[in-house]
Amino acid sequence: MSTEANGHDRVGKPGGLMGTEIAQQPDVLRALLADGAEIADAATRISRFSPRFVVLAARGTSDHAALYGKYLAEIRLGLPAGLASPSSMTVYGSRPDLSDVLFVAVSQSGASPDLMDSTAAAHACGALTVAVTNSPGSPLAEQAEIHVDVRAGVERAVAATKTYTAELLALYLLLSGTPDAAAGIGDAAERTLRAGAGQSAAHRYLETNRVVVTARGFSYPTAREAALKLMETSYLSAHAFSGADLLHGPLAMVDEHVPVIAVVTPGRGAEAMQPVLDRVRSSGSDLLLVGSDDGLPVASAGLPEELFPVIEILPLQQLACELATLRGSDPDRPRGLAKVTQTW
Amino acid sequence: MSTEANGHDRVGKPGGLMGTEIAQQPDVLRALLADGAEIADAATRISRFSPRFVVLAARGTSDHAALYGKYLAEIRLGLPAGLASPSSMTVYGSRPDLSDVLFVAVSQSGASPDLMDSTAAAHACGALTVAVTNSPGSPLAEQAEIHVDVRAGVERAVAATKTYTAELLALYLLLSGTPDAAAGIGDAAERTLRAGAGQSAAHRYLETNRVVVTARGFSYPTAREAALKLMETSYLSAHAFSGADLLHGPLAMVDEHVPVIAVVTPGRGAEAMQPVLDRVRSSGSDLLLVGSDDGLPVASAGLPEELFPVIEILPLQQLACELATLRGSDPDRPRGLAKVTQTW
Repeated sequence: MSTEANGHDRVGKPGGLMGTEIAQQPDVLRALLADGAEIADAATRISRFSPRFVVLAARGTSDHAALYGKYLAEIRLGLPAGLASPSSMTVYGSRPDLSDVLFVAVSQSGASPDLMDSTAAAHACGALTVAVTNSPGSPLAEQAEIHVDVRAGVERAVAATKTYTAELLALYLLLSGTPDAAAGIGDAAERTLRAGAGQSAAHRYLETNRVVVTARGFSYPTAREAALKLMETSYLSAHAFSGADLLHGPLAMVDEHVPVIAVVTPGRGAEAMQPVLDRVRSSGSDLLLVGSDDGLPVASAGLPEELFPVIEILPLQQLACELATLRGSDPDRPRGLAKVTQTW
Repeated sequence: MSTEANGHDRVGKPGGLMGTEIAQQPDVLRALLADGAEIADAATRISRFSPRFVVLAARGTSDHAALYGKYLAEIRLGLPAGLASPSSMTVYGSRPDLSDVLFVAVSQSGASPDLMDSTAAAHACGALTVAVTNSPGSPLAEQAEIHVDVRAGVERAVAATKTYTAELLALYLLLSGTPDAAAGIGDAAERTLRAGAGQSAAHRYLETNRVVVTARGFSYPTAREAALKLMETSYLSAHAFSGADLLHGPLAMVDEHVPVIAVVTPGRGAEAMQPVLDRVRSSGSDLLLVGSDDGLPVASAGLPEELFPVIEILPLQQLACELATLRGSDPDRPRGLAKVTQTW
C-alpha cells in the first residue's frame, strides 16, 4: 500500500476518481478539438437561424459553463444574452415569445427534469434549442433540435471536472467562430496541470472555513466554479463574487481570517480587477493569485483571453481535490450528493 | 441612557439608522403607490416601444431587485430576460444589437460609473433605456430615456433597506400592469414588521459563522438579498442558493453547524421548495422558515405571489440589524464599505 497521503495516484483511494479525471483533461480537450465537424455543423445551423437573443439554461457546474457561454454570446456574437430562470417556465408556467431566440441547455448528464421541461417549453415558444451534454443518448440530447456531444468520456467522480472544461471548449467552438485559436489548448492544459501548483497550495487552507473567490469578465465563471468545487469537496464556505459586486457589500466580511483567491490571468478582465486587489490587500486577507507566477500559474501564453477559463480552473480543481483529502474527506464521495440531481 | 440592548429605538446608537429606515418602509410603499402617475406613464412608453427582450443591470442590493424584475418580465410580460454582465460592454467593449431591447438599470444612488457606461452603450445600441433610482438628479437618471423615481427619501444607513423594497414595488408597478393588486402592500408591510419576528430570532445565530438562505421563483431574490444583508452587517458567511441549485453540490456543506433559512411564503415557489426542505431536514441543519407562522411570519394574505418579495425581506432585515448589534458591531458602519460604490 502506498504511503502517499494525497491518494491521487490511483483510483480507489480518496480523491482517486477525481484526480484521475482531472488528469484526463488535456486529452479530452485535444479529442474534442480534433473531432470538430459536429460542432461546426451546429454552428452553421445557428448562424442560419440568425438569433436575436440567447438564453442559456443549466444547473450546478454546468451553470458556470452557461455563464461563460453568456459572455461569448454578448462579446463574440454581439447578441444580448441571459441565463434562464427555469422556474419561470416550470413552476409558473410562463410561455414567453421566444421566436428569434437561441436556447442553449448545458448538462453533463442530460437527465435533469427541469432542463428537459424548459427545453421542451422553449421549443414550443419558438426558440431554436441546443443541448450541450456529455451523454448523446440522454433525454435532453434527444429533446433538443441540435445536440453537441462534449465527448469527455464517462465521468465517475461526483465533482465534475473534465465535463466542465469540455463544456467550455464546446461552447467556445459553437459560439466564437474561431476554432484555430484553440489549437494549443490541450498542451496549455497539460503544462498547467504538470506545474501542480494547486496541489502545493492546499496546505494554506488546512484550517480555513471561509474563502472568497473573485474575478471579472471571462474569468468570473472560473471563480464561481472554483467556489463550488471547494464547497462540494472540502465543505468550505466558499463565496464567489464578480470583483465589482465584491465592493458592493460582501467586502465587509473579508478580513485576515477569510482568504481571497483572485483569478487574474493577464488580460482585460485582470486589468479591471486591479482596484479590487488593492482593496483586498488593505483588508489584511491572505490573497492567492490564479494566473500569476507567484500564485497558481496558468499556461496562457498564445491563447486568446476567451479561452483562459478552460485552463485557469485546472489548478483550482487540483487544489479542491488535494485539500479535501488533506482534511480527511473523500472528494469522490461528498456527503449529501448524487451524481445526477433531479430537480423540478 | 437607555438600557435596551438592541439600539433600534433611536438614531445614534448602533443600528439606529438602519432600524429607523426599516421602520419607514410601510409609509414609503404607501407613498409610492399613491403617486403612481410617473410609473404609469413610463409603463405606457414601454408598452408603445413593444420590447422583444428585457436586459436588467445593477450591482449589490439593487441586483436583487433586478433579478425580481427578470422574473416579472418573463412571467408577467412573457418576454425573455437576462441580467446584464456590465463588463461585456465596459471592459470588453462589446456593442450588441439591442434594437427591440428594454434595458433597465436599477441603482439606489444613480451614481455607479459602470451602470452609467452600460446604459449609454445600451442606448447607442438601440435599446430603450430606463433607470430606476432613488435619486432623480443623479447622472444615471439623466442618462436614461425614462426615469422612475422610487421616492424612498434619503437613505443614510450603508445597508440598503427601504430603497430595496421601493425598487421592488416600482418594478412591480412598471412591469406587472396591475397596480390595484398592490393596494394592501403598506398595511401588509406594517403588520409584518410589527410582529418583530426577525428581531426575536437573532439569538439563534449568536454563535453562527455560516448560514445558507434558499428559495425558489419570486422568493429567490429575497434569499439573495437576505444573504447579502447578513454578510454586510454581521460579517456572516451567508450563501444564497435557488433550491434547485442547492441540491446540485452546495448541499454537501450543510450540516448541524450550518443553519438554513428557507423562504417559503405559501405559493407556487414554496410548493417547489418541498423536496429541498426534506433534504435539508435530513442533514440535521437548524431550519428557519420565512413566511410560516412557526418561523418568521409574513402578512401575505390577500397579496399576489408576485408581491411577496416586498414584504418577506422585512423580518430578514430586522434579523440582520439585530444580530449585528447583538454581536457587537454597528450595522450602520460596516467595515470596508461606503454608501456609493464606484466600480468600472
